[in-house]
Amino acid sequence: MKTSIATVSISGEFPEKLAAIAAAGFDGVEIFENDFLAFDGSPADVGRMVRDHGLEITLFQPFRDFEGMPEPLRSRTFDRAERKFDIMQQLGTDLVLVCSNVSPASLGGIDRAAADFHELGERAAKRGLKVGYEALAWGRHINDHRDAWEIVRRADHANIGIILDSFHTLSRKIDINSIRSIPKDKIFIVQLADAPLIDMDLLYWSRHFRNMPGEGDLPVTEFTSAIAATGYDGYLSLEIFNDQFRGGSPKAIAADGHRSLIYLGDQVRRSPEAATLSVPDMPQQAAVKGVGFVEFSADEKDAEDLTTILKTLGFRQTARHRSKKVSLFEQGEIRLLVNTDEQGFANASFAVHGTTAYAVALVVDDAQKAFARAIALGAAPFEQVVAEGEVRIPAIRGVGGGLVYLIDDKGDLGRFADIDFIPVTNHGDALETTHLLHVDHIAQTVAYDEMLTWLLFYTSIFEARKTPMVDIIDPAGVVRSQVVENAEGSLRITLNGAENRRTLAGHFIAEKFGSGIQHLAFHTDDIFATAAALRANGFKPLPISPNYYGDVEARFGLDPDLTERLKADNILYDRDDHGEYFQLYSTTFGEGFFFEIVQRSGYRGYGAANAIFRIAALKKALRPEGVPRA
Amino acid sequence: MKTSIATVSISGEFPEKLAAIAAAGFDGVEIFENDFLAFDGSPADVGRMVRDHGLEITLFQPFRDFEGMPEPLRSRTFDRAERKFDIMQQLGTDLVLVCSNVSPASLGGIDRAAADFHELGERAAKRGLKVGYEALAWGRHINDHRDAWEIVRRADHANIGIILDSFHTLSRKIDINSIRSIPKDKIFIVQLADAPLIDMDLLYWSRHFRNMPGEGDLPVTEFTSAIAATGYDGYLSLEIFNDQFRGGSPKAIAADGHRSLIYLGDQVRRSPEAATLSVPDMPQQAAVKGVGFVEFSADEKDAEDLTTILKTLGFRQTARHRSKKVSLFEQGEIRLLVNTDEQGFANASFAVHGTTAYAVALVVDDAQKAFARAIALGAAPFEQVVAEGEVRIPAIRGVGGGLVYLIDDKGDLGRFADIDFIPVTNHGDALETTHLLHVDHIAQTVAYDEMLTWLLFYTSIFEARKTPMVDIIDPAGVVRSQVVENAEGSLRITLNGAENRRTLAGHFIAEKFGSGIQHLAFHTDDIFATAAALRANGFKPLPISPNYYGDVEARFGLDPDLTERLKADNILYDRDDHGEYFQLYSTTFGEGFFFEIVQRSGYRGYGAANAIFRIAALKKALRPEGVPRA
Repeated sequence: MKTSIATVSISGEFPEKLAAIAAAGFDGVEIFENDFLAFDGSPADVGRMVRDHGLEITLFQPFRDFEGMPEPLRSRTFDRAERKFDIMQQLGTDLVLVCSNVSPASLGGIDRAAADFHELGERAAKRGLKVGYEALAWGRHINDHRDAWEIVRRADHANIGIILDSFHTLSRKIDINSIRSIPKDKIFIVQLADAPLIDMDLLYWSRHFRNMPGEGDLPVTEFTSAIAATGYDGYLSLEIFNDQFRGGSPKAIAADGHRSLIYLGDQVRRSPEAATLSVPDMPQQAAVKGVGFVEFSADEKDAEDLTTILKTLGFRQTARHRSKKVSLFEQGEIRLLVNTDEQGFANASFAVHGTTAYAVALVVDDAQKAFARAIALGAAPFEQVVAEGEVRIPAIRGVGGGLVYLIDDKGDLGRFADIDFIPVTNHGDALETTHLLHVDHIAQTVAYDEMLTWLLFYTSIFEARKTPMVDIIDPAGVVRSQVVENAEGSLRITLNGAENRRTLAGHFIAEKFGSGIQHLAFHTDDIFATAAALRANGFKPLPISPNYYGDVEARFGLDPDLTERLKADNILYDRDDHGEYFQLYSTTFGEGFFFEIVQRSGYRGYGAANAIFRIAALKKALRPEGVPRA
Repeated sequence: MKTSIATVSISGEFPEKLAAIAAAGFDGVEIFENDFLAFDGSPADVGRMVRDHGLEITLFQPFRDFEGMPEPLRSRTFDRAERKFDIMQQLGTDLVLVCSNVSPASLGGIDRAAADFHELGERAAKRGLKVGYEALAWGRHINDHRDAWEIVRRADHANIGIILDSFHTLSRKIDINSIRSIPKDKIFIVQLADAPLIDMDLLYWSRHFRNMPGEGDLPVTEFTSAIAATGYDGYLSLEIFNDQFRGGSPKAIAADGHRSLIYLGDQVRRSPEAATLSVPDMPQQAAVKGVGFVEFSADEKDAEDLTTILKTLGFRQTARHRSKKVSLFEQGEIRLLVNTDEQGFANASFAVHGTTAYAVALVVDDAQKAFARAIALGAAPFEQVVAEGEVRIPAIRGVGGGLVYLIDDKGDLGRFADIDFIPVTNHGDALETTHLLHVDHIAQTVAYDEMLTWLLFYTSIFEARKTPMVDIIDPAGVVRSQVVENAEGSLRITLNGAENRRTLAGHFIAEKFGSGIQHLAFHTDDIFATAAALRANGFKPLPISPNYYGDVEARFGLDPDLTERLKADNILYDRDDHGEYFQLYSTTFGEGFFFEIVQRSGYRGYGAANAIFRIAALKKALRPEGVPRA
């Protein structure tokens, strides 16, 4: 499998784009004409720059409004084509994309178009060039790859082929299987793009909403499997128009693009038709069994405050690290580490981000395999410093500069605890248990333009799906929320994308100098028993507006007694077709971190309808008494 | 005409919203339920706060999924309604909005719904409350106001009426005239929203893209005229869902909203059916005859540089101000003032924004009338300091803290020049004229979230239309461009909205600490004569990539001789169905300001297709030699 990306897909000036594309590991690049026109090197310079980066020019594009023109326009389009051929020869590329005509002047007619392409093929052949024809989803007469293919077939010229683009085919819901009858040698290149499923004008959708394969909702994998079934093993090339990408970091977007193709290739390789697609082998997506531990970085002072909160939450210290200043707190299956060591990554993280939950350990079947897959997908490995004899856990860099540890289900977690930690047996100061059983979900707050990056990161490495995006209304703006979760519910990560810093999520990112875990939700089987224990422990719950309870009672037809109990303990309530959901929050700590306790009885969501109340309450609690609102 | 706005339309916490709404001059406010639920005052507190701001609660909303439910859901919706009635009585409002049912459980049936509303009317009447029914465009069974009206008619209850919302009617292209047969007393309130015309899923469009009347493309004026034809003279209330507004400044958004309603009322008042709509009288939109002058603020040093550029552009100083350090430069009908006075607004502007074109004088038929209209529409007046006997020109605050002067066509401009200025007759150092005739357009760069504000500002005060939005591709992101222009072409203002500071436009805003005029385009009748004169004067044009010329020649089938001349003088070319367009740019000055010279022969656009080349060239020129790209 050879990977390529169109220069139009990422931001930056031409040399910047090339550097980012090469660094991300692509094999080739499509030259989008305007990118090089605006650059003031000659076509030969551009070709040299591309090759100096170790890249191949896979395609020159687009050539518009060619086929089916009446004279004198027809002659002029051929003159234009000759000019493009000149540039291609100087660039050093042999393939140009002709997209279907959108001009009102075009006449239509399959045979007229075929005749035009035959003549173009003759001219291209003289120069050793090839022409690929692509059906735009909004082409005037040709907007279906089946019609484009019929034209190519009738053009009957070795230098004329078809270019298939997943967006143009999938946005029109054209039968994917129609691809399987196209000879592989007539497919000159394949362009790929995904998009979120929003019903809108095709051109508008295409211009603003495309994204990387796997980031959207289109069946790009099935499309690519159909391509693979033809025996095609040429370039898979990304052509993405996305406002966010155009304004984003060239390096990050290019890296996401490369990851998306490797991930796609791996998925297609596992389908029966893909024997011919040469994709590097890698272990399959890792099934996550649960959260092994969450580690906080803190200084001594903050660690004291955090420890106090953990104790009121019913955690007790069960061990301390053999060689580092790290304490282990446990309750149910939940393990929390508090790291105050002055050396190492936790300390470096603390220096930049303050006290945060900077690392998460995910329990998987085979940590080495999960690690190998992550690395194959371009994740950055993390090498921790361990003392002689201590356990080395495979780890990768995660959201916001934090870490994701990968721990074997087969006893590694126990081994880590046993070998690296010394049990603490004196729990004299421990408070009552609050019946917390396991981590329900981890909530990460990210800058809005990193949302897709992290969705792709998690779903490509781990066995997980993403839920549709939900808008969370913060008084100061919209926060986009999307969840990565597996079928068992043993992996649940909510991603909240903040667009401006006045939102609670945006404030967290600004204060913390980056994305990261903003809250941890623990599960209990009995929210009221937990609430009672918390009360006994002196835990301070987040006070919820009394107005909420009248509404929730009316909305769900709750028993007034239940409403009273919810209100007394500041518990939020939600329900779906599958069950009930209870939520209870702490106030914030440090840069805006907080804890949540949930009771989930079959319920599948995350209480999105309650978010506005939770946010308002947190914002109120954040604001010191007497200080006016901004 | 009474004005109202739903709290959901603007950002901020509840008290902030109320303060902004009151400050903008609204008479009433719709309480969006979630806004007050999240707030922790009681309904009675909220009612008191609203009244303390001098506002009336016009509506409590929304009450969802009411009509046509089977038992036992039906009973529960009535219970829910009674709870809402409780809240309304505590709030102190008598009208609630019921929007058409979207629940899959709802049964449909006009008479079933009518019966439900009759019963609800009975219950409401007992408490002296009223219920308005609104057809959501995506309602399950009822999604057309004509059907909602039939239900209200059959419900046949004094306390049940209809609520009309422009978005729900216009988004479905329902015949507006069907409103004219509804009795005015059965219209309980009218909600208004506009939206840009983008074909997409109605719910998605409504949730994210609504904007203020006059900011979008829907026929909201015609809708409101039909309402007025019924004799309705109740509240016109804004209900806007817009991601940008949710993250914007509450004060600015509320002010825009109020302006949009006053403007709308004025337009409707001028329609024949609107005798009953009581709208304050104001002069009609001012026809702009041209640009009287543009004034720069600068310090002595920058003024020297600017003067040098103006001279190479063929301007000569014709006068100096009698009492202030202001020089007048002229060429053709173009007048440029350079203000280096240490007192006054220009100096204050310089202190914040640096050297900029901070004021524009627009020539109108009657400056006092134009000023009165601007003030009626909420523009901020500006009182300049003038010496005894000097001319006082009406002025309002414009984009980016700058000024818009309003000058009478009837000799005031001459009077201003004659009275306030002393002619300079010695032009010993003047260079050759470059045949510049008048200002073609003024290009303002604004933060993206101010685009709609300024479109509304100009189109409400002046006789002008707005063009559809165009995306300008800057290497670092998308810049949105929209034009305010009149039919004669004597007013042309391009607005460029920058989303991030790495774009050229965004960089300008960041450097200048605010929006403002980024370039001035002057018209010539002979671009080549102008280019020759510029060359003779030592003017430095912006160098355009040679790649551009091969493309433009092929694209338009230009004579190679013409292409050579364009290339030799760094002139850009465009053409539309109406004529040709030639563009020539200066390099940047100060914080990123530049000049453009155009020859427009019938052509109606602004060279959007050339923008990418111009931006790339300007960015390159901005970057000192040898300094690597960011």
